[in-house]
Amino acid sequence: MAYQYKKSIFAPETFPILPIVQGIKISTTCTGLRYKGRDDLVCVRFDTPAVTAATFTQSSMPSAPVDFCRDALSRNGLTSKLVVNAGNANAFTGQAGKLCCDTVAKILSENEHYPETQIFQASTGVIGQKLDGTLLGQKALENKGNNTLEDAAKAIMTTDTFAKGAGETIVINGKKVNIAGIAKGSGMIAPNMGTMLAFIFTDIVVDKYILQTLVSDITDTSFNAITVDGDTSTSDTFGIFATGASGVSLNDQYDFEQFKQALDRVATDLALQIVKDGEGLTKFVTITVNGASSDLSARKIGLSIANSPLVKTAIAGQDANWGRVIAAIGKSGEPANRDLTSVSIGGILIASDGEAVIGYDEAPVAAHMKQTEIDIHVSVGVGNGQAVVYTTDLTKDYIDINADYRS
Amino acid sequence: MAYQYKKSIFAPETFPILPIVQGIKISTTCTGLRYKGRDDLVCVRFDTPAVTAATFTQSSMPSAPVDFCRDALSRNGLTSKLVVNAGNANAFTGQAGKLCCDTVAKILSENEHYPETQIFQASTGVIGQKLDGTLLGQKALENKGNNTLEDAAKAIMTTDTFAKGAGETIVINGKKVNIAGIAKGSGMIAPNMGTMLAFIFTDIVVDKYILQTLVSDITDTSFNAITVDGDTSTSDTFGIFATGASGVSLNDQYDFEQFKQALDRVATDLALQIVKDGEGLTKFVTITVNGASSDLSARKIGLSIANSPLVKTAIAGQDANWGRVIAAIGKSGEPANRDLTSVSIGGILIASDGEAVIGYDEAPVAAHMKQTEIDIHVSVGVGNGQAVVYTTDLTKDYIDINADYRS
Repeated sequence: MAYQYKKSIFAPETFPILPIVQGIKISTTCTGLRYKGRDDLVCVRFDTPAVTAATFTQSSMPSAPVDFCRDALSRNGLTSKLVVNAGNANAFTGQAGKLCCDTVAKILSENEHYPETQIFQASTGVIGQKLDGTLLGQKALENKGNNTLEDAAKAIMTTDTFAKGAGETIVINGKKVNIAGIAKGSGMIAPNMGTMLAFIFTDIVVDKYILQTLVSDITDTSFNAITVDGDTSTSDTFGIFATGASGVSLNDQYDFEQFKQALDRVATDLALQIVKDGEGLTKFVTITVNGASSDLSARKIGLSIANSPLVKTAIAGQDANWGRVIAAIGKSGEPANRDLTSVSIGGILIASDGEAVIGYDEAPVAAHMKQTEIDIHVSVGVGNGQAVVYTTDLTKDYIDINADYRS
Repeated sequence: MAYQYKKSIFAPETFPILPIVQGIKISTTCTGLRYKGRDDLVCVRFDTPAVTAATFTQSSMPSAPVDFCRDALSRNGLTSKLVVNAGNANAFTGQAGKLCCDTVAKILSENEHYPETQIFQASTGVIGQKLDGTLLGQKALENKGNNTLEDAAKAIMTTDTFAKGAGETIVINGKKVNIAGIAKGSGMIAPNMGTMLAFIFTDIVVDKYILQTLVSDITDTSFNAITVDGDTSTSDTFGIFATGASGVSLNDQYDFEQFKQALDRVATDLALQIVKDGEGLTKFVTITVNGASSDLSARKIGLSIANSPLVKTAIAGQDANWGRVIAAIGKSGEPANRDLTSVSIGGILIASDGEAVIGYDEAPVAAHMKQTEIDIHVSVGVGNGQAVVYTTDLTKDYIDINADYRS
């Protein structure tokens, strides 16, 4: 019996109103490959090739589209068309997987007259099933361009319970620059589905090397700072596409910072929406780490806490079980000074300098644990490194969703 | 409402009959500190100081007894008395924790006339609660010596659902050498309790440097090859105590190998009993990895699979979801060649050379997934490294046990 997905308690009532990014045409369509009665393919056609930068899964088992994009991006750095399908990840599909991506690229290139290296492909869904490149390529010729980013966000959903979008308009040198993105992801690889995909579009004029630096920087504080179950997918992809259609470029460090911060806000917004759609969650958890040997070390400590089944189940049980937080810091493998380590939950200092705080007020902590948004703050006493990590609790619904019997 | 612990389906009907190790006197007693109506303190008095070697938790937040033993062992290497209490881990207890261990040592040393460095202490239970060293020290003077290893195995239980023991008698140079051990552990830090403790006693004559080498070697293939939830405790301790009372020593490489293999079998037996008492388990899972760049890398890949919530929930759901196994290999961070990677479940090759095996027989795989003992075999195509790792599935009972509301 299939699990009946319940909408996340953190789902927004409506999809956000996003700025219109100049220079892109969005089309969604139904391939009929897996899902019936809904669009499952997104085609974004760029009026002129968009400057592109991306980060991909660190998995040693990357999907065929990840291989394709890594190669294409390294050889070109521009995108004329983005093609994303949901339902089949085209991962662990051997030579057939590569052939599929090459076939899609050939069909698009021949019919729409741009280099195959200007095609950006992404797939999400079942692992290990071959995908029909000819069918996908034919469907990907769609350019009606009458769809919105909301339509696109819906078309890339798999086990997601709500469509995810974020964006903002900033003013640089008195002119508007639009940034808007979509994402999908819930469990990292929910019933063999899953994967985190995120695409941000902007009409700024930007150099591809600068854009790549920006992508790397903001990934650390957004998509690399979230975890639902610690399971990295074979297909995780985050791409930024800059059309240049606003005519606005970055003239100095101030402009750069302004743009970077806006991108970071949009990426973090999308990342948090993914966590808030975590499978079976009842709590959204923010873990702040400081006093670590570096920012990276702080992030690793935060992820060790965030991925601890014992911490996650304690939070599900509304139990301020700080001993498990200590144990999770300890097992991270990162430098920490036990005798200077402290833990606060909901702003109340519970443990400090290597021992429990005698007589701390339990009432506000217990009240905090009943909320849907939980804050944990740890300090590990060895340096100035800091990070914020976001996660969910671990509930019986997560088990139900993922232990579902396959027919 | 407290979770009602159900006895593991893998619990043996009776405690094994263990050989009598010469030179030790076992006493168990009730401290009244946490548990009522049961013994919770084990004292093992050695007739003459036992050669001792041990491994401890890698946690950066070690308990006070772990600190104490590391220091004492480095300064002495002999044990006159082993003292183990259950119910309070004496972890994250600051200066009070150290004072407790020092007080126990002082009381024992003054009353029983051996150096404080010849005392081996271990504690398991709640983190962050101070432990009364004076009371514990007084109770630890117990030497009635009329208890068995089964009594000791029961006295160190916390959330364990059965007492764990293993042993064997081997013959070296025509004379008997006895090896017998006990262990405890279930979830790594179940309701703030938990911890893996294991103690093996033998009457062989052995040098402490040889014994330390043996402990390190066999730990890799036994206690370091198991995982229930990936959560390392602050207190994990594995010690071997050699009394020398058999008068039998190791004369050559053959004797050494014979003894090492016997120790390894006893340690692995204890380790597997810990897994088979994993919280909420319905399946015992053996993961064999070969083709890795080294044995250590193979073990890391095996643990990545074993700790993946998605793999564990799939097994709970009796789903031969090999895509999740591939994803777990991919996220391990260890070298692997996707296009040479294969996965077998229950002896049936399901994926090979980077893709699904077309038309493999699903019926025996489905039948295997319904068994209580599951075998997964992966080969990652980069070298000759191999390892075997043991784990459990992840069930709703695990959540129930660990999300239990604290009163």
